[in-house]
Amino acid sequence: MFHFDTDYMEGAHPMVMQRLLETNLEQTPGYGTDSYCDEARQLIRKACGDDSLDVYFLVGGTQTNATVIDALLSHHEGVVAAASGHINVHESGAIEASGHKVLTLPSHNGKVDAQELKQFINDFYADETYEHMVAPGMLYISYPSEYGTIYTKAELQQLHAVCQKAHIPMFIDGARLGYGLSSDAADITLPELATLCEVFYIGGTKVGALFGECVVAHQGLLHHFTSLVKQHGALLAKGRLLGLQFGTLFTDNLYFRIARHAVEQAMRLKAGFVAKGYAPFIDSPTNQQFFTLPNDVMDRLAQRHTFEVWGRRGETHTTVRFVTSWATKPEDVEALIADL
Amino acid sequence: MFHFDTDYMEGAHPMVMQRLLETNLEQTPGYGTDSYCDEARQLIRKACGDDSLDVYFLVGGTQTNATVIDALLSHHEGVVAAASGHINVHESGAIEASGHKVLTLPSHNGKVDAQELKQFINDFYADETYEHMVAPGMLYISYPSEYGTIYTKAELQQLHAVCQKAHIPMFIDGARLGYGLSSDAADITLPELATLCEVFYIGGTKVGALFGECVVAHQGLLHHFTSLVKQHGALLAKGRLLGLQFGTLFTDNLYFRIARHAVEQAMRLKAGFVAKGYAPFIDSPTNQQFFTLPNDVMDRLAQRHTFEVWGRRGETHTTVRFVTSWATKPEDVEALIADL
Amino acid sequence: MFHFDTDYMEGAHPMVMQRLLETNLEQTPGYGTDSYCDEARQLIRKACGDDSLDVYFLVGGTQTNATVIDALLSHHEGVVAAASGHINVHESGAIEASGHKVLTLPSHNGKVDAQELKQFINDFYADETYEHMVAPGMLYISYPSEYGTIYTKAELQQLHAVCQKAHIPMFIDGARLGYGLSSDAADITLPELATLCEVFYIGGTKVGALFGECVVAHQGLLHHFTSLVKQHGALLAKGRLLGLQFGTLFTDNLYFRIARHAVEQAMRLKAGFVAKGYAPFIDSPTNQQFFTLPNDVMDRLAQRHTFEVWGRRGETHTTVRFVTSWATKPEDVEALIADL
Amino acid sequence: MFHFDTDYMEGAHPMVMQRLLETNLEQTPGYGTDSYCDEARQLIRKACGDDSLDVYFLVGGTQTNATVIDALLSHHEGVVAAASGHINVHESGAIEASGHKVLTLPSHNGKVDAQELKQFINDFYADETYEHMVAPGMLYISYPSEYGTIYTKAELQQLHAVCQKAHIPMFIDGARLGYGLSSDAADITLPELATLCEVFYIGGTKVGALFGECVVAHQGLLHHFTSLVKQHGALLAKGRLLGLQFGTLFTDNLYFRIARHAVEQAMRLKAGFVAKGYAPFIDSPTNQQFFTLPNDVMDRLAQRHTFEVWGRRGETHTTVRFVTSWATKPEDVEALIADL
Repeated sequence: MFHFDTDYMEGAHPMVMQRLLETNLEQTPGYGTDSYCDEARQLIRKACGDDSLDVYFLVGGTQTNATVIDALLSHHEGVVAAASGHINVHESGAIEASGHKVLTLPSHNGKVDAQELKQFINDFYADETYEHMVAPGMLYISYPSEYGTIYTKAELQQLHAVCQKAHIPMFIDGARLGYGLSSDAADITLPELATLCEVFYIGGTKVGALFGECVVAHQGLLHHFTSLVKQHGALLAKGRLLGLQFGTLFTDNLYFRIARHAVEQAMRLKAGFVAKGYAPFIDSPTNQQFFTLPNDVMDRLAQRHTFEVWGRRGETHTTVRFVTSWATKPEDVEALIADL
Repeated sequence: MFHFDTDYMEGAHPMVMQRLLETNLEQTPGYGTDSYCDEARQLIRKACGDDSLDVYFLVGGTQTNATVIDALLSHHEGVVAAASGHINVHESGAIEASGHKVLTLPSHNGKVDAQELKQFINDFYADETYEHMVAPGMLYISYPSEYGTIYTKAELQQLHAVCQKAHIPMFIDGARLGYGLSSDAADITLPELATLCEVFYIGGTKVGALFGECVVAHQGLLHHFTSLVKQHGALLAKGRLLGLQFGTLFTDNLYFRIARHAVEQAMRLKAGFVAKGYAPFIDSPTNQQFFTLPNDVMDRLAQRHTFEVWGRRGETHTTVRFVTSWATKPEDVEALIADL
Repeated sequence: MFHFDTDYMEGAHPMVMQRLLETNLEQTPGYGTDSYCDEARQLIRKACGDDSLDVYFLVGGTQTNATVIDALLSHHEGVVAAASGHINVHESGAIEASGHKVLTLPSHNGKVDAQELKQFINDFYADETYEHMVAPGMLYISYPSEYGTIYTKAELQQLHAVCQKAHIPMFIDGARLGYGLSSDAADITLPELATLCEVFYIGGTKVGALFGECVVAHQGLLHHFTSLVKQHGALLAKGRLLGLQFGTLFTDNLYFRIARHAVEQAMRLKAGFVAKGYAPFIDSPTNQQFFTLPNDVMDRLAQRHTFEVWGRRGETHTTVRFVTSWATKPEDVEALIADL
Repeated sequence: MFHFDTDYMEGAHPMVMQRLLETNLEQTPGYGTDSYCDEARQLIRKACGDDSLDVYFLVGGTQTNATVIDALLSHHEGVVAAASGHINVHESGAIEASGHKVLTLPSHNGKVDAQELKQFINDFYADETYEHMVAPGMLYISYPSEYGTIYTKAELQQLHAVCQKAHIPMFIDGARLGYGLSSDAADITLPELATLCEVFYIGGTKVGALFGECVVAHQGLLHHFTSLVKQHGALLAKGRLLGLQFGTLFTDNLYFRIARHAVEQAMRLKAGFVAKGYAPFIDSPTNQQFFTLPNDVMDRLAQRHTFEVWGRRGETHTTVRFVTSWATKPEDVEALIADL
């Protein structure tokens, strides 16, 4: 079987595994206070072009979202997100379990619109009863979105301007950040991204690490964050494992090189489908590709390939998702297209 | 430097690393639904002597405690624990962040007393205002305790009997379970432990795994647990990593063999200190050893060895903790004793 | 000025005040354990036609919703409600502060649709990733709704049937229950309502009491509810005040008689507007009436009358809400219509 | 029967009832925005000798404690309190339900000691692992305490100095504030109290109001407090009721005059017991009095008087509590003493 279900089906990039192996019996202090973490933090700061950034390592995406959002919100505030946002749909209520409401905006193929955000905030404060409502306390977006789409630089600037005017921080969920920034459609760099929001995270789990997410925040913004990470059960005892992985991924640009590979395979996959007459369901420029297929075609593909069912389209068609990763073999993509 | 600070300073046992490496590029479904997890669950059930047990894999200890406790308690209940319990002291308020109070009993070198537990529960229900108080909803103990001590079988039976009479579950934090059960002082086996409580966890992070804790529960007790694990940010995307590690540790009794090694080194360490005239501060039969040393002796040792300061004893002495692990080299113990 | 802003602008019905005054210096035990509360519970049970019902008294609506919902939901569950539901919009995130998500259905003039609820639940369990999503754990509706509309008996039966099939309780927010049941459009009685859901509350604050909401639940459903009410800060020390008020309101049918008065005034108000050519914005049969007025008409009315602005309709018109209560004077309604 | 169980057994002071009655049919806007609340806030500020204070009205004590503490603490912080503190014992876990730990100090007849507080804070920050522990984020004390005792001015100054040095706010639970400040043992005035802490509340429920607690805070300290009060279900729709009651109590010094009455009755009660040879169990100068009685004496008293059992003292004696209030009749005290 060839697997296109998702981008966390394999382990880690071989260079990451090698470094874990080489250092396996070294003794280091815990909880991210070791030299590998320090080194990785420096490499991340350098890649972001800003030595003043605060850098933290956590284990997984849901815990990272819940912890960052808990750190940024006051008790009376909620987080604004697309209705399709991961935090609103697929985190088992982790945000609410921390006491915070997710305030939803319409999802435009996974993205929120700056005008709609502005209107939402204006409407909130125009409402005489706003003290009885949950205040918009921050913005959450994902880059790329859950639909594989990415924001343009202009869109991010507009969103950020709305947030700054409302004095609320903007947080970017970068679980698949590499696959976004290495897309041909991306018109921003990592250093630019770092200035277009207050906090973001660089996803490791889906982009070459065994596991791990790296939170990057403007200096001093995340108060007492280590305590909060511990409280959320997200502080890895053997912090070294995270430092080592991100250190390796941010040496010689490995992170973006392997992400680029995934995007290239996704583009080949998309081209193959288009060549056979299937228009994309969503025009994603990143490693997630969506097509609506006749059910018999889908069933035929399913004999040799795995993928995720995204939604039924009437009786006869189904939208499915194919995901590539840093580990996707070109021949697997070819086999998929051949079987189409 | 020789490090005796704690038992999570190295990576994983080499056989664990080897298995991670061998399977690194295999593609498996996520979140613990893969065959390695299934296999590990079977091995754990077998080691526990009960095929009906529910087995789950989480990443770290704090998140495991918080998730299990949240699963077991109703809204109006709290968890009873020793005042010295990890959940009461060193988890940054993770239990309270889930809305639950920690109800404390006196700590007897890390252990709670069955009579005191019984009295606590009786006093609660004898109080006319008990509906205004937090109900004892479960018992949390650690085996070994934070002081290296372990409960006897009789003590566990007594505690369990009190819990059963009060219709509340008993949960054992086994972050260092291997180091307890492989101690000469242990008078129970893993299958016995599994019958002496409703839920416990087998610590991996400190006993041979890179990371990972394995929750074992009586069948059907932890309702909707996967959702709750996800909500607590504790559901590892690449669940395979956990299944593989525990599968390896529970093949050929590896888990207990390497735990036994740590205990043997701890006993050699203790004997060395005793031979030089230092009585143990707490008589621990497991991998944590506590001694009160004159400050000049402590300072001399600190030149070549690291360890944790446990508490000042007046102006001239300090209690310190030495911890061995599966990875401790006999020659390191010898060097420590030689330097004493 | 004549006030039509809302239905909690006055104090209590004079008979309620008289009873409070008469008993003011009596000494009673606290927290709802007094004989006035017992008596009121019996009267409520009788009015509901079911001696087995559990009856509790709380102080206000938001705390009642938050406490009941917290009591009914497990940790992994959320409450399904109309997007316009009070709990989703106007309770400052009280539900989320207790850790629970509000799962929204479309609002049809404040009401949810049984087919849409059924589809929502079906879609949830059809989703392979449902364990990563918040489970629909109960239904919340309001009767009358925030838009003054009420469900028909058939609609309630359909909703209840969907809930029963999904094994989730149905909870009715009856902050304005009297104004709903005494409407000409109501085709159910209080005893019928009590069988068409598992829990509901009878609003006192807006219907003749100084304050107070009375929760009615199927027997044994709300486990340890007194503790939870206390935990939510909703257990009134002088519980007698609540028992006395509800006892008075449920003697000689006072509750429904005064509610009927409010509805009659609302119907006169509506008829007056219609007679002058203004069609209702929403066709509400209860004590809240909504009209879209030219701004100059609205401004003219505002010189002598107060009401709530419900929303702008372009540049020239505004939808406003007029609310009557048990205390509304017929001559005030006449003055309003005369000024139209 | 004569009731000495507690101080919330009657309704409200007759002048409070009269004002509620006089204004019953007036129409006022909700949620504390009416003129009666404004007036009461001015009266309270004047009584506190500081026009800059923020004043809020809530309904009950538990909700007031939970809301204020939630407002003052960050996510990683807990509230320091005496082990005997109401928030630690008798609020059904309300503080933890908001996510915060209660950090306990020894109770000295209900009071905490400044040196012990200082040591606690010092120990916390001296601990290398303090980021894994719950930070002391504020101090909670009660005046009078749950044992009827009160702090001296010097003690309050010392506690406040420790808090100020640690940059944490100090909060005084004044559920029985009147009974403390009007005691002969009190060496502070209300204006002095207002400078010796950052937030306190003036208890109404137990001191002449039907219900209601008045939070007084240094200006700007309680951010977005109205939203938080609403979120905690503690925002009374008919806010007027609270404003009127506190306005009445703080006109012509009524609050302290009626509190003084209760204290005088308590002192007479104490003197009567002492005269008959019973030494106080705790030497309380306020309206709660504690005596250890032979069980036969207790049983005899119980035939005509009610009181609270505080604790068994061996087989033959019991400590009981007698509470007076603004409504206690002198002849009831005499009857009690006569029956002794």
